Amino acid sequence: MSEGEARFDLSHAISVLERTPAVFRALLAGLPDAWTTPNEGPQTFSAYDNLGHLVHGERTDWIPRARIILEHGRSRPFDPYDRFAQVHESRGKTVPDLLDELERWRAQNLETLRGWQLTDRELALEGEHPALGRVTLAQLLAAWVVHDLGHLAQTARVMAKQYRDEIGPWRAYLPIVDR
Amino acid sequence: MSEGEARFDLSHAISVLERTPAVFRALLAGLPDAWTTPNEGPQTFSAYDNLGHLVHGERTDWIPRARIILEHGRSRPFDPYDRFAQVHESRGKTVPDLLDELERWRAQNLETLRGWQLTDRELALEGEHPALGRVTLAQLLAAWVVHDLGHLAQTARVMAKQYRDEIGPWRAYLPIVDR
Repeated sequence: MSEGEARFDLSHAISVLERTPAVFRALLAGLPDAWTTPNEGPQTFSAYDNLGHLVHGERTDWIPRARIILEHGRSRPFDPYDRFAQVHESRGKTVPDLLDELERWRAQNLETLRGWQLTDRELALEGEHPALGRVTLAQLLAAWVVHDLGHLAQTARVMAKQYRDEIGPWRAYLPIVDR
Repeated sequence: MSEGEARFDLSHAISVLERTPAVFRALLAGLPDAWTTPNEGPQTFSAYDNLGHLVHGERTDWIPRARIILEHGRSRPFDPYDRFAQVHESRGKTVPDLLDELERWRAQNLETLRGWQLTDRELALEGEHPALGRVTLAQLLAAWVVHDLGHLAQTARVMAKQYRDEIGPWRAYLPIVDR
């Protein structure tokens, strides 16, 4: 298949969103802390931080913002999003705790989303992002999907970097450890 | 936790390797073709191609090369590896076919690896890579882990890119679509 971008399709978006908790569970459940706790340097996320960040997004970002668009349109800007909220919110929680939270929140949020039975007209409704300005509901939902995939890639990358020196000359073929 | 690299630990390496088939299954099983078939342009991999490439590696790369090191050391260089072998090898196979193959091959290869009960002395044994030259068995096994994680990140990225234009202004915050 050649390159070509998908048009936003709500059922396709949901097909990714509904898989994310199981993907992180398959990757992280039972994994030694040596894989889940290191990060990529100051102000970066470990695998554990990525997971907590996804949980925070379920609570405060995607569906709450979609609701603001549906109820208020651009008249009420979204609340700003705290990219480091998981530092305090995850405190005392284990990886299995966060995996369970992500699964519960995501299931509940997708139930809400499906319940709305959004039409194309509603997907085109606009909201006001505090920094990015005018956005549509479809863009918000597409961003939710890409955000999941971005944090999956980031989780794989921070894990891979733990072996940057261990792979010796293979470093030339495995650019993920230098990204 | 601060940044810091893990030393190679065989049981930790296996803990990632044994999860990979389930991670890809959770991510790709049942997903619409619109997510699994597009790639990032000429000579790049779709999600489907990434999966076929991992299966090819199980058959011809990691454990076969480890065996060459254990049996011949540097006297017998590894066979070169065909990065695009999956183009013909995957022909006619579905995503579920490839997920099953990856699961079977990986389980069998990890059984072989565990059966060797490798010592530190053996992990330090050297082999001859056709392009990279002198490598150790530990480096080969670490590269297997990083290769898995790299293709997981690549699979997430090629999927994310399908929504590059759909996310509108969020593109500024979601760099995975431009990587």
